[in-house]
Amino acid sequence: MKPEELSAESLRQQIRTGDWQRPTSGAAHGFVQANLVMLPKMHAFDFLLFCVRNPKPCPILDVLEPGNSEPAIAAGADVRTDLPRYRLYRKGDLAEEVGDVSAQFADDTVSFLLGCSFSFENAMLAAGLPIRNIEENRNVSMYITNRQCTSAGPFSAPLVVTMRPMTPAQAVRAVQTTTRFHLPHGAPVHIGDPRQIGIADLDKPDFGDPVTVHEGEVPVFWACGVTSALAATAPALPLVITHSPGHMFVSDIKDEEMTVF
Amino acid sequence: MKPEELSAESLRQQIRTGDWQRPTSGAAHGFVQANLVMLPKMHAFDFLLFCVRNPKPCPILDVLEPGNSEPAIAAGADVRTDLPRYRLYRKGDLAEEVGDVSAQFADDTVSFLLGCSFSFENAMLAAGLPIRNIEENRNVSMYITNRQCTSAGPFSAPLVVTMRPMTPAQAVRAVQTTTRFHLPHGAPVHIGDPRQIGIADLDKPDFGDPVTVHEGEVPVFWACGVTSALAATAPALPLVITHSPGHMFVSDIKDEEMTVF
Repeated sequence: MKPEELSAESLRQQIRTGDWQRPTSGAAHGFVQANLVMLPKMHAFDFLLFCVRNPKPCPILDVLEPGNSEPAIAAGADVRTDLPRYRLYRKGDLAEEVGDVSAQFADDTVSFLLGCSFSFENAMLAAGLPIRNIEENRNVSMYITNRQCTSAGPFSAPLVVTMRPMTPAQAVRAVQTTTRFHLPHGAPVHIGDPRQIGIADLDKPDFGDPVTVHEGEVPVFWACGVTSALAATAPALPLVITHSPGHMFVSDIKDEEMTVF
Repeated sequence: MKPEELSAESLRQQIRTGDWQRPTSGAAHGFVQANLVMLPKMHAFDFLLFCVRNPKPCPILDVLEPGNSEPAIAAGADVRTDLPRYRLYRKGDLAEEVGDVSAQFADDTVSFLLGCSFSFENAMLAAGLPIRNIEENRNVSMYITNRQCTSAGPFSAPLVVTMRPMTPAQAVRAVQTTTRFHLPHGAPVHIGDPRQIGIADLDKPDFGDPVTVHEGEVPVFWACGVTSALAATAPALPLVITHSPGHMFVSDIKDEEMTVF
């Protein structure tokens, strides 16, 4: 079976057994994929508040109660084992990458699953809009902007954005298309001049790869889930766990269920 | 100046000085009004999680950090003094109503401001839709349904709904109109047969007043903020504070800012 034809459950099963260790981009087509952040209960209120105050970069799909590892959005799944790769941050610094966090998961660990732009990319493709990084087989371009998110307790971060170049007419259609996906980032946060949001050079993204911007195209920017990882690792907590970039949690809900209308 | 022409700030000033002690319905037209729940920090994560899991009845407008009384959505305001009437619940039971909670507000008190259907009622009126309780000068009809909200920690509640009767064609227009107001309750949760959601008799609402349903009209039901008060007072906590029904917090944001598009 092709990766895109897998059900979310089959894909998670392959990940859990170690048969699938690579990024989840393009796999289990149509199922919502999520960013993961895990931190201790004592900081969970503040981090949840950070997400609530910054819904565009940190759209909440599911929050698991302390010590619970089975998400409501994927019955039978286990967030300790069902992502292909995790990052462990100790005192705010990346310490190691692992394929399973059962040993690190504690009774007071709270897991946050946050929306991801994969959901609206499919809708954009269906609307005939270009996604340059897919065309060029690269990772999406991500940039740290000069816009600060609203902080909560010890959690703060600059807004991180993804960028997809297109013509102005396509940008209008992209606003319409992504507006329906209110939960996974929704409408763009900026269109046009990158310098207005503190991006000096589109060819030098802070994460991901640069892509070609053709003559007559404008860059269109969406809030990006990487913001949540920056916020979670801003304070020097003993341990914060996130997914490794591109190695997402794949849920049982469908992209279309994420729309406002 | 007529009550509806007051600015939110002027109205809050009158409330703070005790010159305004009555319900806020219809006052400071166009400004977003909010439900209030105050509880101690130790329960704040679970209650915030209840709201996140039940966004239709409990749309989060603002959450204040422990001991903070000035909302982000109303600079200079004070949630301890700027509502006309508060309810104090001790061990889950209504103990008393007061006009000021400065004495009860503690360093660990977390205040939640949640959306209210007043925001979309104005948009419905502008679209030419009937709001029967306004026509008949009564409080909106509210019913406890047989649908359980998703619980979080000790917080659980049945979904409470408001009801507005209208023709089927008007109901379609009402779905469209209120869909834009994603944050304040959004689109209806039910149209038609009340028994499907556990309501035995429309003439006997659990809160508010009954209204006339004309021949050819169907009842249209929206999620109601009263759900949040039921959830907050479900566990027998030492003290939970809410607004008194109809005596809301009036913010500086405008109804139109609450729309998705």
